[in-house]
Amino acid sequence: MNVKILDTTLRDGTQGEGISLSVDDKLKIAAALDNFGVHYIEGGWPYSNPKEVAFFQKLRKLKLKNSKITAFGSTRHKDKNPEKDENLLSILKAKPDCACIFGKTWDLHVKSVLNTTMDKNLEMIYSSVKFLKSKGLEVIYDAEHFFDGYNANPEYAIKTLQAAANGGADNLSLCDTNGGMLPNQLKEIIDSVKNNVSVPLGIHTHNDSDCATANSIVAIESGCTLVQGTFNGWGERCGNANLSSIIPNIKLKLGINCVPDEKLKWLTETSRYISEIANIIPNDKQPYTGHSAFAHKGGIHASAVAKKSSTYEHIDPSVVGNQRRILISELSGRANILLKSKELNIDFEKDTDKAKKILQLVKNHEKKGYLYEGAEGSFELLVKRNVGKHKTFFKLGGFRVAVEKNIRGHLKSEATIKVFVKNKTELTAAEGDGPVNALDNALRKALDKFYPKLRNVRLSDFKVRIIDPSDGTGAKVRVLIQSTDGKDEWNTVGVSENIIEASWQALVDSIEYKLLKE
Amino acid sequence: MNVKILDTTLRDGTQGEGISLSVDDKLKIAAALDNFGVHYIEGGWPYSNPKEVAFFQKLRKLKLKNSKITAFGSTRHKDKNPEKDENLLSILKAKPDCACIFGKTWDLHVKSVLNTTMDKNLEMIYSSVKFLKSKGLEVIYDAEHFFDGYNANPEYAIKTLQAAANGGADNLSLCDTNGGMLPNQLKEIIDSVKNNVSVPLGIHTHNDSDCATANSIVAIESGCTLVQGTFNGWGERCGNANLSSIIPNIKLKLGINCVPDEKLKWLTETSRYISEIANIIPNDKQPYTGHSAFAHKGGIHASAVAKKSSTYEHIDPSVVGNQRRILISELSGRANILLKSKELNIDFEKDTDKAKKILQLVKNHEKKGYLYEGAEGSFELLVKRNVGKHKTFFKLGGFRVAVEKNIRGHLKSEATIKVFVKNKTELTAAEGDGPVNALDNALRKALDKFYPKLRNVRLSDFKVRIIDPSDGTGAKVRVLIQSTDGKDEWNTVGVSENIIEASWQALVDSIEYKLLKE
Repeated sequence: MNVKILDTTLRDGTQGEGISLSVDDKLKIAAALDNFGVHYIEGGWPYSNPKEVAFFQKLRKLKLKNSKITAFGSTRHKDKNPEKDENLLSILKAKPDCACIFGKTWDLHVKSVLNTTMDKNLEMIYSSVKFLKSKGLEVIYDAEHFFDGYNANPEYAIKTLQAAANGGADNLSLCDTNGGMLPNQLKEIIDSVKNNVSVPLGIHTHNDSDCATANSIVAIESGCTLVQGTFNGWGERCGNANLSSIIPNIKLKLGINCVPDEKLKWLTETSRYISEIANIIPNDKQPYTGHSAFAHKGGIHASAVAKKSSTYEHIDPSVVGNQRRILISELSGRANILLKSKELNIDFEKDTDKAKKILQLVKNHEKKGYLYEGAEGSFELLVKRNVGKHKTFFKLGGFRVAVEKNIRGHLKSEATIKVFVKNKTELTAAEGDGPVNALDNALRKALDKFYPKLRNVRLSDFKVRIIDPSDGTGAKVRVLIQSTDGKDEWNTVGVSENIIEASWQALVDSIEYKLLKE
Repeated sequence: MNVKILDTTLRDGTQGEGISLSVDDKLKIAAALDNFGVHYIEGGWPYSNPKEVAFFQKLRKLKLKNSKITAFGSTRHKDKNPEKDENLLSILKAKPDCACIFGKTWDLHVKSVLNTTMDKNLEMIYSSVKFLKSKGLEVIYDAEHFFDGYNANPEYAIKTLQAAANGGADNLSLCDTNGGMLPNQLKEIIDSVKNNVSVPLGIHTHNDSDCATANSIVAIESGCTLVQGTFNGWGERCGNANLSSIIPNIKLKLGINCVPDEKLKWLTETSRYISEIANIIPNDKQPYTGHSAFAHKGGIHASAVAKKSSTYEHIDPSVVGNQRRILISELSGRANILLKSKELNIDFEKDTDKAKKILQLVKNHEKKGYLYEGAEGSFELLVKRNVGKHKTFFKLGGFRVAVEKNIRGHLKSEATIKVFVKNKTELTAAEGDGPVNALDNALRKALDKFYPKLRNVRLSDFKVRIIDPSDGTGAKVRVLIQSTDGKDEWNTVGVSENIIEASWQALVDSIEYKLLKE
């Protein structure tokens, strides 16, 4: 048995809040999906948005290697012949390999949304599918609200599928459009459908009950041979079924083939690349592909994983192109420190005294509010400083940061800084959007001529957390900074009652990390 | 049938990357969980972290109304009598109502992690449970890696459960520790377990296959009467089963009782409050409680929902305390404004134009990053300023805040401020632990002789959140301040790229709120 993947990131995915893709973005994502090997790329709904036709033209020029170009649409309007229906004609205009059209299953919708009769709806389904088939297209029929419709009127729901089958549909995809189904309910309905239609079935779920992935898997086990979803689970409301979970579940857990074996190790990169293009911050907790998906924090977990990784990992992370990470925190033990240091090519196995000393340092720092699990750059510097592998690149002569608000409400932030670099003294000043930004600008300006490589470094994330909020404005502050040079990313931390000082520590660590790396 | 809820947000939840809770945070979350009505609050693992004992003492003083205080631990060490085992004794020290201890199911773990014999492990389970029962505790036995263990050696897995049952365990919770199970596999195993043990079963899942919620639901349908999870699905790696999805699924989809009916409408608020306390940005796409969970973007969806909401919503959002949002027309929200204003004794019913104006103001402010959900003090001031019920107590002539660090690393924060109060000009200066503290001190000093009642006001909470983290140190910052005068508490908000300005706005609102209240 083989399961085919229909990716609708570019159509249903864009209905998610905050997702907005340019034509160029869509082409990049389509190329990545084709490369990864999904069988169908649903590119958009040409009728709903005239821009889509231009996108489909460009998409065709990409000459996809693996994926069929699929255009979305609906069954014809109740008062129009298929040949005159703009919605169906716009699908033809997009010149896809495959059409995916949705029709109504649920009597509630037939009456209160379409305002037509039950029989008329059946005829609309039949004639729309037949029309598209007559034009030489592969046709997937999306039975919208199939499960809700089945629960309301099972006989009629089956009739809608039969109408599509009679029209010549290649696949009947059962949609949980409102996303409210649970696995056992869904399985029962699919089992009864199987006895009434002979065309291959597909499944299209949404995550409103937090069961979209599970429902897709259960549907496949019940015989569906096409699964629809989006990368990273984007989509309307709570999102569509997440293909980056479903694909490895199918291959690794069900032992059923879908994308080629050698593609699976590109899963994490594909998922993150798509997030990057869409400018959506990836969900760290995302199964299989998330930054934290194989991150071990509890001391017991970390020490057991060190002995045998399968003790606390359901799969080997490298199979999906992800990585194990050992987090350093107050919950962690010596095993975490040893493992983490090994990643840094510092082997404490023979020098457990030093490892103990570093663990003690980490614990003392964490008592003060430092947190190394999100600041691996600072942890690396901490270790290197304590094993003589560190080097000083500059020394601070002092800084002064001032924020002024005048009577007209105008704000000004300014920083002056003095640093000693390579036996020279550099005194400089800069403005900024706020005090930390001004200090950041001044420090970079001061170091620029000595370390031009720092020009490529930019801060990609900045987090501030008050550690004991009940101390009010005098509370300790933890600043976490993420930096990137376009190739690598690293995280650093600073802690102080003074947010300027906490930011300063994290900024200095970020810069030292980069310079030490070179 | 009834299902009981064990919340482990404070124990397993804190093993999630980026989750770090102070004792004070944990107490606030525990109070919210108790109020919501979960049956068990697993507060921590006293043995792993000595701080936990102090937390349990404080937790007991809260006199919880609904929840049993539960302490976590493991079975005894292989070489120790239960009476001498520090891990078991630390549970007793925490003085909980209930103990939840985990033991090994999987032969792989018995041999390669515990380094003991299969029989010894059974005895360790039996004697540990028996010891805790003999001390009068309710005991939940967590069968770690139950499903992996069962797959490896079903007979032995069952024996471990029987050992716990013979020791007197009140519940046997089957754990999918690595989170790799799929629903049908899990169901099959639970069905076979049921024939071999008579003690009530529980379920504890993780989300590594993206099936944690579905697996919990399937387990309940198969007869488990206790479900373990965390609010918002926090936890090691991809997280634990998400109680904010599971609870409404149980009540609304399975029709089984768990928390009292009237609590369900507090689900969204409880979920968001817990995120706020932990300073974790809530997941907008989270089923049931997410900001986007009932947000309709597609044109067809929005217009159908306008006709009949059940066409594209699996449940009525108000049932879980969430709200429908129409993303294109942005029609939502007026009802909310009307309700909140009513709470403030401002009745807009007869003046809907004014209500519309305020709604527009709120929307404009929210676009800039303000958030009134956690800042009702600022919302009240916003309304009062716009209905002529506000009064000015002072005007700013200007401020200047400076932070200096000298070559010896010494830090100094100083603020000068000029305010006009009751026709007088007051110019003053103050130092502080950081720039915001210095400004806070200077403002209070300037106002002191005019408004001596401000002496009772202190800041009880201070939160900083970066709104667009990818803008680095130039990103917008939202500051939330909680103030108290010993009797009442109020929350205010400020937003700016400049943290000093954002803090200033929240400080001014806090002081005006107090003065207006008098």
